[in-house]
Amino acid sequence: MKKDEVVIREVMLRDGLQNIVDFIPTEAKIELFRLIVASGLRSIEVTSFVSPKAIPQFRDAAQVVQATAKMTPPGVEVSALIPNLKGAQLAVESGMFKVGLVMSVSESHNINNVRRTTAESIDELKRVLELKAKYPGLVVKAGMATVFGCPFEGKIKPEVTLGFIRQFYQLGIRDMSMADTVGFGNPKEVKEMCRLAVTEFPAVSFSIHLHNTRGLGLANSLAAYEAGIRVHDGAVGGLGGCPFAPGAKGNTSTEDLVFMFEEMGIKTGVNMDALLEASRYFQKVKKDIRYSSSIIEVGVPVPKGAITKDGSEQKWNM
Amino acid sequence: MKKDEVVIREVMLRDGLQNIVDFIPTEAKIELFRLIVASGLRSIEVTSFVSPKAIPQFRDAAQVVQATAKMTPPGVEVSALIPNLKGAQLAVESGMFKVGLVMSVSESHNINNVRRTTAESIDELKRVLELKAKYPGLVVKAGMATVFGCPFEGKIKPEVTLGFIRQFYQLGIRDMSMADTVGFGNPKEVKEMCRLAVTEFPAVSFSIHLHNTRGLGLANSLAAYEAGIRVHDGAVGGLGGCPFAPGAKGNTSTEDLVFMFEEMGIKTGVNMDALLEASRYFQKVKKDIRYSSSIIEVGVPVPKGAITKDGSEQKWNM
Repeated sequence: MKKDEVVIREVMLRDGLQNIVDFIPTEAKIELFRLIVASGLRSIEVTSFVSPKAIPQFRDAAQVVQATAKMTPPGVEVSALIPNLKGAQLAVESGMFKVGLVMSVSESHNINNVRRTTAESIDELKRVLELKAKYPGLVVKAGMATVFGCPFEGKIKPEVTLGFIRQFYQLGIRDMSMADTVGFGNPKEVKEMCRLAVTEFPAVSFSIHLHNTRGLGLANSLAAYEAGIRVHDGAVGGLGGCPFAPGAKGNTSTEDLVFMFEEMGIKTGVNMDALLEASRYFQKVKKDIRYSSSIIEVGVPVPKGAITKDGSEQKWNM
Repeated sequence: MKKDEVVIREVMLRDGLQNIVDFIPTEAKIELFRLIVASGLRSIEVTSFVSPKAIPQFRDAAQVVQATAKMTPPGVEVSALIPNLKGAQLAVESGMFKVGLVMSVSESHNINNVRRTTAESIDELKRVLELKAKYPGLVVKAGMATVFGCPFEGKIKPEVTLGFIRQFYQLGIRDMSMADTVGFGNPKEVKEMCRLAVTEFPAVSFSIHLHNTRGLGLANSLAAYEAGIRVHDGAVGGLGGCPFAPGAKGNTSTEDLVFMFEEMGIKTGVNMDALLEASRYFQKVKKDIRYSSSIIEVGVPVPKGAITKDGSEQKWNM
């Protein structure tokens, strides 16, 4: 990838939906996928193969994978989240061969989140990788949660995360994600962590998954970009994330990410008008949805003459 | 100023109030000032000496200046905005000797905003500077609006802004502000512009005034910081800005700026709990106020153990 390009990985269909209790009809998910693809997004996380008991929203994971596979143009990458080997098996059986297993780099968060120690999670990852014997086309990604802070343990030292990356690397994994699960990260830490990872592992494709909990989503993405990260997760409308507080923002909004990067001359390949169709559509499906996206609120600027007719709104402003 | 320090200049009492039509009682403004000072903010724009016909909100400018002067501890800088010589005269007569005259670097925006060409604005600035003969303690700052884009002219070339800075410098001005009046700036442009200014004029104290219209306020502040800007304007609650679109955000929120910088280990001198008292107080004065601040919405994180008891909210999150 060139320096002036980024890939925005769209996670609305997974992270954006996972906290929505009302079941979103499968056809609506598929239509959302169509709109997301039509906007030019080239990497899409389509669902999660989690237990339907834990998250009933994803009980249609296999159907979504099968339907969207037929609609995926060349050059567009689709993936699914898996919590364990069982999820991986369900994924490959449904025809999904790019899966991401997530574990927390914080021991206590991992125990709370997936009821396993991190060592047990690494063992589970090895078992998932063994599936490659039967399914040579399987690509396994590793996602690391709480890289930039944990609600139980606070700050996590970069060396801890690097330890996980080294283990994943030795297992042959070349696609890894670092997540700010609860929105604790700041641009300085994000830049330092990303720089350490990119420098030690130039052969790995790292992505960053940021929550905009305290408004730092874009600033943190900018810091990650400056450190060399070229894959940035976003969710249509800023959905998802950790809604532990009322009013909390979710994932960094895809619209805002696209706007920031495009304005900086960094290509995303995304057409903003087409992208906004996705949020408009979802608002019809789920009328009470609350977006958190500056671009959805305000719109993209029209650079010349069209915003105000007489400039009066700027009176005495600076 | 050291590399790991910034000054947040609080502009709520000026920019934050100027678009509020209901008159905020003078005592409430003074109480806000008290709370702002108590939070540790060291630079405060207290009012605007604009015509009361244009903005009735500031008809008490002289009273605010006189009352707050008595309450200003050593080391805290207060200033006022002036649109013209008349404003400067009213300011000094009220005892305010630090004034900022604003002009747009975009010709058409300046004509719309202050009904003058920029050449006429420079002439007005010279007349304001002549007041120094009578008031040697007068400090005149120059503010540049629309540096990062104009609703009429679109992008403004850095060379245009540098031309203004050179003129101000020749007039002896050493305190200048660059404003993203309509929230058109992006981190790349902000960094480039700031770097050019700081490099050519190391003796000038530059401040940056950013509007968070499209969510880029913090990212742009980060970029400005990286370019060497150490004075960042913010408004309590993210008030102010250019409300040209419903839902548009105002100035970058002081709370969010303080949070970002402090988290990065860059000292602001501000106590967050005390700062939040100011927005809480103003909400009692003006019940329908709509803040735009992630920290006000979500709160600051408690790093260890206190946010969730069982981590269940993070279930399957990454």
